[in-house]
Amino acid sequence: MKYLIDPMDLSVEEIDELIDIANDIIKDRTRYQDVCRHKILATLFFEPSTRTRLSFESAMLSLGGNVLGFSSASNTSASKGESVSDTISVVSSYCDIIAMRHPKEGAPLVATRRSKVPLINAGDGGHNHPTQTLTDLLTISREKGRLDNLTVGFCGDLKFGRTVHSLTKAMSRYKNIKFVFIAPPELKIPEYLKHDLLDAKNLDYKEVETIEEVIEDLDILYMTRVQKERFFNEQDYIRLKDTYILDLKKLEKSKSDLIVMHPLPRVNEITTEVDDDPRAKYFDQVQNGRFMRMALILKMLGLENEVER
Amino acid sequence: MKYLIDPMDLSVEEIDELIDIANDIIKDRTRYQDVCRHKILATLFFEPSTRTRLSFESAMLSLGGNVLGFSSASNTSASKGESVSDTISVVSSYCDIIAMRHPKEGAPLVATRRSKVPLINAGDGGHNHPTQTLTDLLTISREKGRLDNLTVGFCGDLKFGRTVHSLTKAMSRYKNIKFVFIAPPELKIPEYLKHDLLDAKNLDYKEVETIEEVIEDLDILYMTRVQKERFFNEQDYIRLKDTYILDLKKLEKSKSDLIVMHPLPRVNEITTEVDDDPRAKYFDQVQNGRFMRMALILKMLGLENEVER
Amino acid sequence: MKYLIDPMDLSVEEIDELIDIANDIIKDRTRYQDVCRHKILATLFFEPSTRTRLSFESAMLSLGGNVLGFSSASNTSASKGESVSDTISVVSSYCDIIAMRHPKEGAPLVATRRSKVPLINAGDGGHNHPTQTLTDLLTISREKGRLDNLTVGFCGDLKFGRTVHSLTKAMSRYKNIKFVFIAPPELKIPEYLKHDLLDAKNLDYKEVETIEEVIEDLDILYMTRVQKERFFNEQDYIRLKDTYILDLKKLEKSKSDLIVMHPLPRVNEITTEVDDDPRAKYFDQVQNGRFMRMALILKMLGLENEVER
Repeated sequence: MKYLIDPMDLSVEEIDELIDIANDIIKDRTRYQDVCRHKILATLFFEPSTRTRLSFESAMLSLGGNVLGFSSASNTSASKGESVSDTISVVSSYCDIIAMRHPKEGAPLVATRRSKVPLINAGDGGHNHPTQTLTDLLTISREKGRLDNLTVGFCGDLKFGRTVHSLTKAMSRYKNIKFVFIAPPELKIPEYLKHDLLDAKNLDYKEVETIEEVIEDLDILYMTRVQKERFFNEQDYIRLKDTYILDLKKLEKSKSDLIVMHPLPRVNEITTEVDDDPRAKYFDQVQNGRFMRMALILKMLGLENEVER
Repeated sequence: MKYLIDPMDLSVEEIDELIDIANDIIKDRTRYQDVCRHKILATLFFEPSTRTRLSFESAMLSLGGNVLGFSSASNTSASKGESVSDTISVVSSYCDIIAMRHPKEGAPLVATRRSKVPLINAGDGGHNHPTQTLTDLLTISREKGRLDNLTVGFCGDLKFGRTVHSLTKAMSRYKNIKFVFIAPPELKIPEYLKHDLLDAKNLDYKEVETIEEVIEDLDILYMTRVQKERFFNEQDYIRLKDTYILDLKKLEKSKSDLIVMHPLPRVNEITTEVDDDPRAKYFDQVQNGRFMRMALILKMLGLENEVER
Repeated sequence: MKYLIDPMDLSVEEIDELIDIANDIIKDRTRYQDVCRHKILATLFFEPSTRTRLSFESAMLSLGGNVLGFSSASNTSASKGESVSDTISVVSSYCDIIAMRHPKEGAPLVATRRSKVPLINAGDGGHNHPTQTLTDLLTISREKGRLDNLTVGFCGDLKFGRTVHSLTKAMSRYKNIKFVFIAPPELKIPEYLKHDLLDAKNLDYKEVETIEEVIEDLDILYMTRVQKERFFNEQDYIRLKDTYILDLKKLEKSKSDLIVMHPLPRVNEITTEVDDDPRAKYFDQVQNGRFMRMALILKMLGLENEVER
């Protein structure tokens, strides 16, 4: 595993192994705290994303490794006209592994051509964000004890939501998954996903417009932000926005072991009263993100068996 | 001690203990150089302050720990509308201790509600900056051998100077402190401080307009910057500014063991000819700031007794 | 060696020693991986330069040391009116060695007056950039096995190219060097260099306008970028620009062991088809830059003999 660009690059078996490593890290972190000593992670964020960058950096430091990099492109050689390939050629001389974020779709793939070290896509535009998907899978696996036989509801902006598309693809490989897409007409899941994936694989899915009509059936409710600027007009936004704000009332009829997920940052699409509810798992996702990134770094550096036993 | 928001949160005894730890670090730093190994400090600077950030980072690295964070809010999720509470919820999953600076008064206090780890206020607007005050106390204690029986002059912008207000409050708890406030009428110490603190505790203080008239009496002269934009009009500024610029001439009649302090950065309110005078201690303050922050990190992580003996 | 401001501050013997240390590091990096443990490098970049900053940071981390600093001046106390001397006074309390970049020529020299720790100039305006020159010398030494008896071609913007001026001066101290300067009339090597250095030392040099007329003679071809804004008018730029773009065709008649160098970033002055040619050494330069900076940090900290044997 030299590069991770698209979460679908990984087989189900590889994902299982990463989840196993992450679970082992969670069980006893101290055994992993020096395994990446003398290794350097470069975080190359051509587009700012503090949360993702800090998660990668915390992961590497928690493995005993070191970190260098940049948090936005404004001050890099890119602004002098250097190509992404050249930047990667150079920086891959300075480090042992790269986590790269870029506003252009496909940039991390181009970068792999010249990288001398393993490279992880930390998000490329609206395209892929594989470590978020792996984090989501780890969270589901830990909370539900399985990745199959689940009814998964996605709610909010399903048209542009990169995390929703990736997780839908990833979950489609497990047995007996029922998908429920909850969105306003403007923000429904794209046709290509329905046609090429859901219909093509003959998967069980339905599309609805409110949380309330399906809440009883869900094992997982995956919330995303509904951005005002996505709507055709102000009235539609005002009419619809409360429909996609999750509060304790909308959760009343849920299964007791429902889990509520969110890729964060959250603005107001989940009220803070939900935060202390045991069904809320979005802050656990954050914690899992760090552990999954630790597992991934270990695996890509080939150090997963170097751990103290 | 889970959070440090206001320097007055600390008892005199707690301050004494921090000063003791800092002095012990200064005596033999090598004994402390690995005590925070495997620990991570997050420096969350929603407002830039290079000096304070680097002091915290140097402190943590000098304890053998690691550092991650951001140096300005412009590129964080805050700009996507995330609340401070959520940012802290997330980042406290990535680290063992947080140093947080924020332009809004009270933001660090709000942050403590969701932080899973100890949190230090590294400055909130014009409000509190407890590590600066602790650094000032350490410097006075080291240079004068005591924190009581002192005549302390504060000079410059006493109206808006956060460090002056905090140090005045902190010093008011020690015995036999005489306060001398040297400022133009526009920048006198606020009424609330005089009324609620100095008068209420019946402390010894006076207000004057020039350094020369009091220099002979002072054990400590604490300088601050007089910013042009604080004045009502240009003429007042031009007339007054030289009065508040410290040079060797104004120091002529001082006690031989007077110490001159300044929170830095300095613009022109102390001439560089003073820098090499033995009474100048403002660069020693910087050094002490690093050691005090080391002491504080140790104490808040509960590691102050883990040091090699 | 307390400060390195100008590459010419170093004697030929000191450069030889640095090259020896760098070569030893390249031979077995693991022996060096903990030698700077507990040491802190401050990277103070008052002007952004991601490449140089990351090279220094990688060097220090690869020696087992730590790094702190800032990557642009916009958020530092400099913007509050603090002098460079004061900033250095402060930051040299936080670290063991400083690498400093500044847009103003001479700023690093001023900085040395107040620095309590060794300081390396990481580039000051169009003036000096000693670690680039040392990197170039290491590359030539490694690739050609010698630093004398060479014909060196410099091509592109020889008027403003800081790296060209520095390397010319540095190479002028070795025996039997022939210089060939390839540039349009607008961008010829400055008169002062010809008069004060090349003529004064009676060195062998010539000036030409095309690569093709000299390619056969060269042992080294050092390319630099020709910036459009350097030209008097658009037509001249359009007429001339292709002349200074290196492709495989222009390299056809070269010696088989010619090496092509470039300080990077490259925009389009070397076509990417050249990258995979064995004569292309510009990405090796990057790698060498890291090792030379490791050698320099070791030497300036006086740790070059502390290495595990």
